Amino acid sequence: MFSFIVNKKDNRARVCSFVSLHGIVETPCFMPVATSASVKLLTSEEVFSMGLKAIILNAYHLYIKPGTKIIIDSGGIHNFMKWNGLALTDSGGFQMFSLPGSQENEEGISLRVPETGAQHYFTPEKMIEIEEKIGADVMMCLDYCPKIWDNLQELKISVQRTVDWAKKCKSAHSTENQQLWGIIQGGIDISLRQQCIERLEEIEFPGYGIGGLSIGEPWSKTLEIIDLVSKSIPENKVRYLMGMGMPDQVVEACEMGIDFFDCAMPTRIARNGTTLGWNGKFNIKAAACKDENGPLDPECNCFVCKTYSRAYLRHLFNAHEMLGMRLNSYHNLYFMSELMKKIRSSIKQGKFQEFKKDFLNKYQQKE
Amino acid sequence: MFSFIVNKKDNRARVCSFVSLHGIVETPCFMPVATSASVKLLTSEEVFSMGLKAIILNAYHLYIKPGTKIIIDSGGIHNFMKWNGLALTDSGGFQMFSLPGSQENEEGISLRVPETGAQHYFTPEKMIEIEEKIGADVMMCLDYCPKIWDNLQELKISVQRTVDWAKKCKSAHSTENQQLWGIIQGGIDISLRQQCIERLEEIEFPGYGIGGLSIGEPWSKTLEIIDLVSKSIPENKVRYLMGMGMPDQVVEACEMGIDFFDCAMPTRIARNGTTLGWNGKFNIKAAACKDENGPLDPECNCFVCKTYSRAYLRHLFNAHEMLGMRLNSYHNLYFMSELMKKIRSSIKQGKFQEFKKDFLNKYQQKE
Repeated sequence: MFSFIVNKKDNRARVCSFVSLHGIVETPCFMPVATSASVKLLTSEEVFSMGLKAIILNAYHLYIKPGTKIIIDSGGIHNFMKWNGLALTDSGGFQMFSLPGSQENEEGISLRVPETGAQHYFTPEKMIEIEEKIGADVMMCLDYCPKIWDNLQELKISVQRTVDWAKKCKSAHSTENQQLWGIIQGGIDISLRQQCIERLEEIEFPGYGIGGLSIGEPWSKTLEIIDLVSKSIPENKVRYLMGMGMPDQVVEACEMGIDFFDCAMPTRIARNGTTLGWNGKFNIKAAACKDENGPLDPECNCFVCKTYSRAYLRHLFNAHEMLGMRLNSYHNLYFMSELMKKIRSSIKQGKFQEFKKDFLNKYQQKE
Repeated sequence: MFSFIVNKKDNRARVCSFVSLHGIVETPCFMPVATSASVKLLTSEEVFSMGLKAIILNAYHLYIKPGTKIIIDSGGIHNFMKWNGLALTDSGGFQMFSLPGSQENEEGISLRVPETGAQHYFTPEKMIEIEEKIGADVMMCLDYCPKIWDNLQELKISVQRTVDWAKKCKSAHSTENQQLWGIIQGGIDISLRQQCIERLEEIEFPGYGIGGLSIGEPWSKTLEIIDLVSKSIPENKVRYLMGMGMPDQVVEACEMGIDFFDCAMPTRIARNGTTLGWNGKFNIKAAACKDENGPLDPECNCFVCKTYSRAYLRHLFNAHEMLGMRLNSYHNLYFMSELMKKIRSSIKQGKFQEFKKDFLNKYQQKE
């Protein structure tokens, strides 16, 4: 049913094929965020046909709305949202723990949904039941993300619970057409990260998310941990860097052998008027764009760049026309898709270092 | 440059061809509203390829944002928004007069733009200058829409100013590739409407908008006035019913020989969750839709109906996902396009009455 094959390596950077019931995903790949079964403002078909073959959804959010019954009745999440590629569900632990008033202990987490006031209690087993019902191809274990990055006691609790819960998730997992991946916690503490990996490896998972990064620690620390953790995940297993995926971050992490990325930023900043481009990102709302008749990015072949001008996009944002957010979201995701294609192609040609240097030189010049 | 040909009549209902630099528009036609150079949430290409070949824009709004210079620099409104069909600009008089604090006299109107506080003064001549710069195929004269429907004095002022201003607009009009249409006012007063038409005909326009309806008067009165005014506009001239275009209104007015319609309702209600269907309109947000796996409308062939379920659309609205507004807007405009095609086809076959009866029977059953 599932397979994961390393096709080509260029130092530690690698191109792999991940095969599920919903086709082959070539990695390194970027997964757009479809928290509530929608990549904001875009159709599933648009996302798929720009070359993005995997998305990430949020099990907690989908459990609250529309609920698992409606998803099951419509034939599972793929049919519900007409997504023909790989679907991955995160448990949504991070979102649950962030809710004001949520309370957790060794067994699970209780919370009150802000919108409805309804009280819920989630255990690792309950989350797997929900994720199985949603029907994504890959499910993430419920993990415990530390609330602060520099408190050793909190990091220890995080690793302990994450490992305990991973064991429970694995026992609860009952489906064959869905794969379950573990999540590695441990913050910026190298020995805790090592410990977490070893204990998860005892439980055994075919893939691992690297969680608990980008929560306040300095970027050099983030890179150090990605570097270390990636090395410690066995070669034949998937390495997924959770929640991080701005273009320069992606390039740096690919060098360390990361396979999967997800990030809400490319679409979120798109809605605020930030446009990704090969010469760096820029704000399309800026006055400088108001009479620029060229495309968002001169090197981009997306339909937005082939059709509309910066002046038009700038006007749409300025006039609060939602079409602006839609077109900019399309462009930014297309940019991410092209970036991943170029990364894969450079690895295949053994020229990743060259690509990385050229890309960062151009991309970071304006930032 | 321009031509208007009556191809087929079925009693008073008629199919005509209106030809401009931007192709042939077959009437009766429905114009989506693109106030600020965007049919909300949809691309120009989507609107055009669903069979809608004409849109209406608002000269006042475009003058404020992005301003005529930016439109001129990008090669005119068609190139600015990549619209390949007929573009018609309303002056935006209605919107100007509705601004709090606006003041008008025989010469024009002064107002303060709410967002910027900037003071502006518009005369009929100034509006034509703006409309010519925007570069739409058809421009509407600046008219004076009465503020209340049942005050004879106000209606008289409205006719007097509208005719005076039409004369000034015509004198100011200097372009050959743009056609200027007059607007008929007079409220529900039959003799005032007649008077207005006669005086506008003395100035001579190739087409007429019927304005000042649907501002509070009963529907029976509205129909009576459309009936009378349409009869009084010479056969060889365009009849454009301004600002009205819900499906049942369109069908009723086509019977009276109306050629052009525009209306913000199909897209505005779409964003609020109202879906047009051949069995009547309904609210997609309703609980009844939550587990309906069928399309928005079983008879509709739009990509939304061919792809997604009511349950998915309902979820998108429920989860405040803007994709819901986008997909519902697409469907509602596609519905309007299909309705106009069916109307034209029934007229060509001499079966308009039959179509009208069948359509209204089904469409009005649920309302």
